[in-house]
Amino acid sequence: MQLPLSPLAPSDAAKLLPVPGVRLASAASGYRYKGRPDLLLMTFEAGSQAAGVFTRSLTAGAPVLWSREALASGGGAISALIVNAGTANAFTGQRGADAVLALSAALAELCECPKNQILQASTGVIGEPLEAERLLPYLSGLAAGQSHTAQAWQMAAEAIRTTDTFPKAASRQVEIAGTTVTLTGIAKGSGMIAPDLATMLAFVATDAKIEPALLSTLLSEGCDQSFNAITVDSDTSTSDSLVLIASGMADHPPLSKADDPEVGPFRTALNELLLELALLVVRDGEGAEKLIAISVAGAADNAAARRIGLSVANSPLVKTAIAGSDANWGRIVMAVGKAGEAADRDRMAVSIGGIAVARDGERVADYDEAPVAAHMQGREIEIAIDVGVGEGQARVWTCDLTHGYIDINADYRS
Amino acid sequence: MQLPLSPLAPSDAAKLLPVPGVRLASAASGYRYKGRPDLLLMTFEAGSQAAGVFTRSLTAGAPVLWSREALASGGGAISALIVNAGTANAFTGQRGADAVLALSAALAELCECPKNQILQASTGVIGEPLEAERLLPYLSGLAAGQSHTAQAWQMAAEAIRTTDTFPKAASRQVEIAGTTVTLTGIAKGSGMIAPDLATMLAFVATDAKIEPALLSTLLSEGCDQSFNAITVDSDTSTSDSLVLIASGMADHPPLSKADDPEVGPFRTALNELLLELALLVVRDGEGAEKLIAISVAGAADNAAARRIGLSVANSPLVKTAIAGSDANWGRIVMAVGKAGEAADRDRMAVSIGGIAVARDGERVADYDEAPVAAHMQGREIEIAIDVGVGEGQARVWTCDLTHGYIDINADYRS
Repeated sequence: MQLPLSPLAPSDAAKLLPVPGVRLASAASGYRYKGRPDLLLMTFEAGSQAAGVFTRSLTAGAPVLWSREALASGGGAISALIVNAGTANAFTGQRGADAVLALSAALAELCECPKNQILQASTGVIGEPLEAERLLPYLSGLAAGQSHTAQAWQMAAEAIRTTDTFPKAASRQVEIAGTTVTLTGIAKGSGMIAPDLATMLAFVATDAKIEPALLSTLLSEGCDQSFNAITVDSDTSTSDSLVLIASGMADHPPLSKADDPEVGPFRTALNELLLELALLVVRDGEGAEKLIAISVAGAADNAAARRIGLSVANSPLVKTAIAGSDANWGRIVMAVGKAGEAADRDRMAVSIGGIAVARDGERVADYDEAPVAAHMQGREIEIAIDVGVGEGQARVWTCDLTHGYIDINADYRS
Repeated sequence: MQLPLSPLAPSDAAKLLPVPGVRLASAASGYRYKGRPDLLLMTFEAGSQAAGVFTRSLTAGAPVLWSREALASGGGAISALIVNAGTANAFTGQRGADAVLALSAALAELCECPKNQILQASTGVIGEPLEAERLLPYLSGLAAGQSHTAQAWQMAAEAIRTTDTFPKAASRQVEIAGTTVTLTGIAKGSGMIAPDLATMLAFVATDAKIEPALLSTLLSEGCDQSFNAITVDSDTSTSDSLVLIASGMADHPPLSKADDPEVGPFRTALNELLLELALLVVRDGEGAEKLIAISVAGAADNAAARRIGLSVANSPLVKTAIAGSDANWGRIVMAVGKAGEAADRDRMAVSIGGIAVARDGERVADYDEAPVAAHMQGREIEIAIDVGVGEGQARVWTCDLTHGYIDINADYRS
């Protein structure tokens, strides 16, 4: 099925910047998709460090189990990352694990590195074991054909797509101790997207020199406010993987402490990049017609605010109302009420598009639906909720629930 | 919007039995719906007892707050119940509470009873205060026009509908100490349906003589296995109300102890009736084309099994796959994995329509999709999951997620 381009796709492709110490190559293996790249190899300069955040699903796929273990046993050292789009290789028992091992062994030989310096990610149908022998023949060609160019990054973003209607990539540059470092990332995902993580793959590389512990901290913090703050359909994938790789090729003193002032600008750039990639995923939410940002304030704490925000963001009735451009704010109140978090019904306030709709537990006295209805006609919807009990706040993003979601998921085996 | 009849509607209307001590009348107030009954009054013989289970939403509607308080302060004594379909009167502040009080006061005068013997329920749009003055003129006519006939019950089931495509009602008869007693119930609900409770109203009356404490116990137990085991869209209404009324007109010794052997057959009949009504709600799930029953076994305990079942039942990807008659069992595994409950990936088993699909953490060796695909073409889908860690089990029901759901909820302000 060829899906039409999401109406929320960015109008211009992001300008991608190569990352010193990172090379990429893609191939069209025809494993599931025909006539397009579906296999990605990334390799990293010796000494590169990686940190990863993976799905919390109890039925995580074999590549996730492998990568988690490889990072742990190898102390974060990374030589190569291989990604296939077509089969998730999840819930595939020993055969799935064997396939992952076969790929890692072959790549370790090619890259002349220990097997636990190979990371893997797969995305696609759950329950079908990966047939490694169909991918192994492509490895040497991939290794030979690598490049560090912007075009190679662009092709990599293409290669990891499944139901995505556009490739997702972004870059940033920032200075560390007077040296310019680059961050470039790619992501995929459009359905089975819910926090912890979104159903998605994302790989971000930088040439900055960052010690493993700090790299993990920065990634966790950034993920929390980006990929863990988005939802398309409340479903959590078995394959979610977010990996941050630092090649260390940049010529600056290594960063190791979170409170080092030199970390600040890098942290900001990383967080911006992660949020940009995460929002690209929401913009490509299956069938999405509108991007919805939900701000929650006045909750008992930030975690409570997050749960209230996600309760609204995951409500099918809220999402369908927005699909219909209907300013049905009562459904927002319903979704707050079912979140199970403290909320003071008589102090609650709701605004849509910056216009107060309800205050002190009821509709505002002079409520005029016209400007709210006008906002609802747009592509980007802003909802703000104050639940009136404390200082906790959060911001989450989702998309509307449309006929397109049904079309894609009732017919496409993803 | 006139919705087409659900394809899952029962082919024959249930034969309803009048309940001694219970009279009903309906009226077309035109409050929101035109040309159909939308207002229901039920009155009960002096000495009738009621038990209620209400939404756990923190933004519960004014009628729910009233009824909960009335039952508590009146020790379960009930004289009348008034229901309007059109506005939920939820999140309406003091004006909503005033409207409820005005209706209760007027009915208490008509029925010559204390105000806390009046229960109320409302369903419809959230956020719009009830205009009591538009309903008050109908009360004396309703009180004068009551009857205890089967037709009055049938009309009552019609009067409480909103987006329901068919009226929901059922009866049972059972003996207590040699005396035949009757149970008849009506229900409404089709969207905003999730446990605790489903978004729905249900009223069940019996002429059995049952002490208040036992009545509450029996209702809670029965609700747990029926209305709290169904979900349409994971959204929890602000108005959910399930009320069981016992008029005590039947000529048998009062039941007061849960372990009295005479309670057994009544409990069974009540549980069956509640489940029948709950499944009618799922059969009328907005846009539903298929009824889905999910059995979970092998969980840590029954509560864990319930949560796993609901994680599957609420998964948009599972529900859309079933809408597309796609035997995409990997999505079932995904939904188990995200439930957050203990599951042994390597011992998990899944069957669809009684046919084993996965066993010991992977697809069965000789998997033949054909018979599973044939089952998926049907109207009633059976999913059984064993998560391999304990003895906990549960059974839950839902419906598929179709274009019809989007049609109804993107356009209809409910």
